[in-house]
Amino acid sequence: MGVPAMMERENPKSVPDDATRRVATSRCESGRLRDAWDVVACEEPLEIQLDGAPFVVVMRTPGSDRELALGLLLAEGIVACVKDAASVHHGSVSPDPEAAGNVVRVNLRPGLRVDLEALRRNLYASASCGVCGKETIAAVLRAAPPLDDPARFAAGFFGALPERLREAQQVFAATGGLHAAALFDPNAKLLVVREDVGRHNAVDKVVGWALEREFLPLAGHVLLVSGRISFEVAQKALAARIPVVAAVSAPSSLAVALAEESGMALVGFLRDGGFNVYGRRERIGA
Amino acid sequence: MGVPAMMERENPKSVPDDATRRVATSRCESGRLRDAWDVVACEEPLEIQLDGAPFVVVMRTPGSDRELALGLLLAEGIVACVKDAASVHHGSVSPDPEAAGNVVRVNLRPGLRVDLEALRRNLYASASCGVCGKETIAAVLRAAPPLDDPARFAAGFFGALPERLREAQQVFAATGGLHAAALFDPNAKLLVVREDVGRHNAVDKVVGWALEREFLPLAGHVLLVSGRISFEVAQKALAARIPVVAAVSAPSSLAVALAEESGMALVGFLRDGGFNVYGRRERIGA
Repeated sequence: MGVPAMMERENPKSVPDDATRRVATSRCESGRLRDAWDVVACEEPLEIQLDGAPFVVVMRTPGSDRELALGLLLAEGIVACVKDAASVHHGSVSPDPEAAGNVVRVNLRPGLRVDLEALRRNLYASASCGVCGKETIAAVLRAAPPLDDPARFAAGFFGALPERLREAQQVFAATGGLHAAALFDPNAKLLVVREDVGRHNAVDKVVGWALEREFLPLAGHVLLVSGRISFEVAQKALAARIPVVAAVSAPSSLAVALAEESGMALVGFLRDGGFNVYGRRERIGA
Repeated sequence: MGVPAMMERENPKSVPDDATRRVATSRCESGRLRDAWDVVACEEPLEIQLDGAPFVVVMRTPGSDRELALGLLLAEGIVACVKDAASVHHGSVSPDPEAAGNVVRVNLRPGLRVDLEALRRNLYASASCGVCGKETIAAVLRAAPPLDDPARFAAGFFGALPERLREAQQVFAATGGLHAAALFDPNAKLLVVREDVGRHNAVDKVVGWALEREFLPLAGHVLLVSGRISFEVAQKALAARIPVVAAVSAPSSLAVALAEESGMALVGFLRDGGFNVYGRRERIGA
């Protein structure tokens, strides 16, 4: 954590070593600078390979890399269940030891046909009508249809969630520099927390965790994210069939529109005992 | 702004209409829900076309789309000055009116050779050694060499910058949901502020603004961002030759490493009258 205590110190226990890095800094207080050490969140590229070919490189915080790969492949519509991935190997065949941890190699189940060229980062590009939000949502709904999950939640379900996320955040406490995503079951039990420099990566890691355990579809579950609810966060939740996404900050217009069309509820500004509900507001009762 | 006042109201003046959207919400306070209206940040896809072919689609907040396109093309190493873009047209030839505002068509100067296939989102993929942070930084430095800008700043330069950014943020005040980036000149004069649902987009818009005005290279200038300093933010600043990036939150490890290698200083945790300096710390004096 940068600000309050800048003295050199041990890494907090139970934080994976490769998720943080110690760096030299100069701390300025009252206009005076002094040398100090700080712990920052680690950011490294991760290459995801599909059937031996590079698919995508994402900048991420090391840790839970298999989950990140699986969650991203689910969000992109490439796998629907863990059996679609015949094998998932962490590590490359490169002779460079620094690169070894930065590759996840996924082999798809034989017979699973994927049009890689069409998928490669083109999810949001529409072919015929140009590009508009309406068409973007339609493209997402073609891949992941609207929810038929009847789940409803009492208003009191949500108040304590952010505090429980904060308690479970490990790397953030060390660095102050991470996004987090957490999955809660229908009884508000915290199932998993993942942190990353990238907000979308944290969501992919949570969904990948559930995918590996064959917990999908995540009917009746709630995804909590530490920042804003962007369109991509809502899209990834929909792919995992999560009916409610909550956040301490605001949703974007396109996230709200996707929630309305897909039957998802977005709980925004979840703090100070209150919140706003967007999208399928009927999911949240008194 | 979601939380304090949820009643229906006018859009704040001087916020572009297409940067916000009014949505229905249910406001929960003390466990009671009531219907209300909220204003959220608009998020829409933008397709950037190069010489008539789709190049990339980014999710962004509408506004300053030309600047976003130019800044992104600079960061990707496709243009080096505004003259490299022979024409920049906002709007598509699509008959769909909703898509019309979501396309920027850039024609490059005749003779400018670009290997589009190599560039297409592969900036951080390395070919030979696998993927590691060191190689990622080396790839960036091959495209944008280390700074030779001798700029130094007094510690007192930075304290007032976040407040001046907040004062200038327009859409954030309406929605609570945006990232911002601002450019300050060597006299701490605020030159431009841009806001976006995407942190990188806000930086691209600021750099594109400067590129259009032929202000590059931005020697002696300071970029301030509202959130964290990721590797991509530092990389975009380096492409614009900005020697100092400041932020109210933390840098990532790879941003710090890039700053060290390129001679950039990162000012993190800029709040409560103090800050930390990472990278080329000698740029900040007492």
